[in-house]
Amino acid sequence: MLVNGTPYRTVWQDRESGAIRVIDQRKLPFVFEIETLRTVDAVAEAIRDMHVRGAGCIGATAAYGMALAAAEAGGAGDFDRAVAESAERLIATRPTAVNLRWAVDRQLAAMAACGRVSEKLAAAEATAQAIADEDAEWCRQIGRHGLEIVRRIADTKPAGEAVNILTHCNAGWLAFVDHGSATSPIYAAREAGIPVHVWVDETRPRNQGARLTAWELGQQGIPHTVIADNTGGHLMQRGRVDLVITGTDRTSRAGDVANKIGTYLKALAARDNGVPFH
Amino acid sequence: MLVNGTPYRTVWQDRESGAIRVIDQRKLPFVFEIETLRTVDAVAEAIRDMHVRGAGCIGATAAYGMALAAAEAGGAGDFDRAVAESAERLIATRPTAVNLRWAVDRQLAAMAACGRVSEKLAAAEATAQAIADEDAEWCRQIGRHGLEIVRRIADTKPAGEAVNILTHCNAGWLAFVDHGSATSPIYAAREAGIPVHVWVDETRPRNQGARLTAWELGQQGIPHTVIADNTGGHLMQRGRVDLVITGTDRTSRAGDVANKIGTYLKALAARDNGVPFH
Repeated sequence: MLVNGTPYRTVWQDRESGAIRVIDQRKLPFVFEIETLRTVDAVAEAIRDMHVRGAGCIGATAAYGMALAAAEAGGAGDFDRAVAESAERLIATRPTAVNLRWAVDRQLAAMAACGRVSEKLAAAEATAQAIADEDAEWCRQIGRHGLEIVRRIADTKPAGEAVNILTHCNAGWLAFVDHGSATSPIYAAREAGIPVHVWVDETRPRNQGARLTAWELGQQGIPHTVIADNTGGHLMQRGRVDLVITGTDRTSRAGDVANKIGTYLKALAARDNGVPFH
Repeated sequence: MLVNGTPYRTVWQDRESGAIRVIDQRKLPFVFEIETLRTVDAVAEAIRDMHVRGAGCIGATAAYGMALAAAEAGGAGDFDRAVAESAERLIATRPTAVNLRWAVDRQLAAMAACGRVSEKLAAAEATAQAIADEDAEWCRQIGRHGLEIVRRIADTKPAGEAVNILTHCNAGWLAFVDHGSATSPIYAAREAGIPVHVWVDETRPRNQGARLTAWELGQQGIPHTVIADNTGGHLMQRGRVDLVITGTDRTSRAGDVANKIGTYLKALAARDNGVPFH
């Protein structure tokens, strides 16, 4: 997505140096800073200390970290053992981040399927790129499907009147590699020429809505209003919310959703007021 | 209630000088400061700029302000007109504060019932004192009745286990003259030897819970935990809340309640989890 008019991902690999580049999200919205990570240790620190955060972004960053792990192990006597140690170091940074372990395991499997070290190195780089590209594509697809939901609501409104969407926390492109999950239908709607306005829960206690979601919406030129988390119910009672879209940290097969604290309260209010909640 | 071990009201009249004393609530919890108000203008400023806040406290402060208004008008040519002008000035400070207008109107009626200026002066002082005393007594009665609700819950728990009460905003003694409304049953329970623990919503955007409720509970030695407003629903889902008590800015004859933003979300969560909500 755009930052100061230039398209970015949250994490990518520099083709020439092989170094990993990430947006340092601790400094947003005050400073936009790209950090360069040259070692597995640097990647581990970036994940542990929340330079990067969000399920998809952490997974892709760890996948790139495993490419660095392979490169670091390239000269070692026991390649597999060195890579396995790096894998453990990365997984230990955020034990509850499911995408992290999944990405690291996928990298280990990709390398295990290769014979020579040179093949393992190539597989690790290709798998990191694939994980990042897939994350971006999945988010784009969320936008494609979500767009139809927004469009149906827009069709019930007078021409030119914005669809009011409430979101909680940051399930934006900053939490993934590109597009975001909850924000992707918003960006897709904007691209399709549907006017949208977003109510951004500030999302206490860490204020990811006020700090991250508001910033990324602003960078894409999407009209939005930061609100105290208490405000959403009142806005729904007054008919000022057409649709709620939040992320989901995990969704069980039974359909139960675990997400950032406060999501449940908004879901209850949406139900009480007949507001669609996705 | 106690501040540093000494009993206080939020507003009172100094017997010797006739000046009005209030706790300057803008500075809490960082500084405990008593402000002296010697003129109607000073009282108006204290209400308008929220040195004092909360329905009962504003009402009593305005009542004392009218006593000052009578004293100021005592030497004027047209006593009634001077008092009426002061009344308008006070009412204009917080046009939505119903207790304010009610207290000022009661003062005007009390003075109108008297013939001589000296009688009007005495009536204004007596009425101010009566309004403050009544406010304190009504709050004490809320505690007396609420205590039984807390006691019934305590009786269902193992001996010594605290009753967990969640509250939102500040409907504490700081919002009234003494005891508070939502806090009064908590203070009464403590006095009756029932162990209580209070979940204090920080109450964004102005943080009255984190700044005022937590401070006054701490001053009375009541165990409490400040939580982000988002947290209450999760705690109720986990069975960590036995009872919700909040204030009400206004209650309609039909039973509808208007209160600080966010109260509605907690009421929905209480209903969804079968937690009593008062």
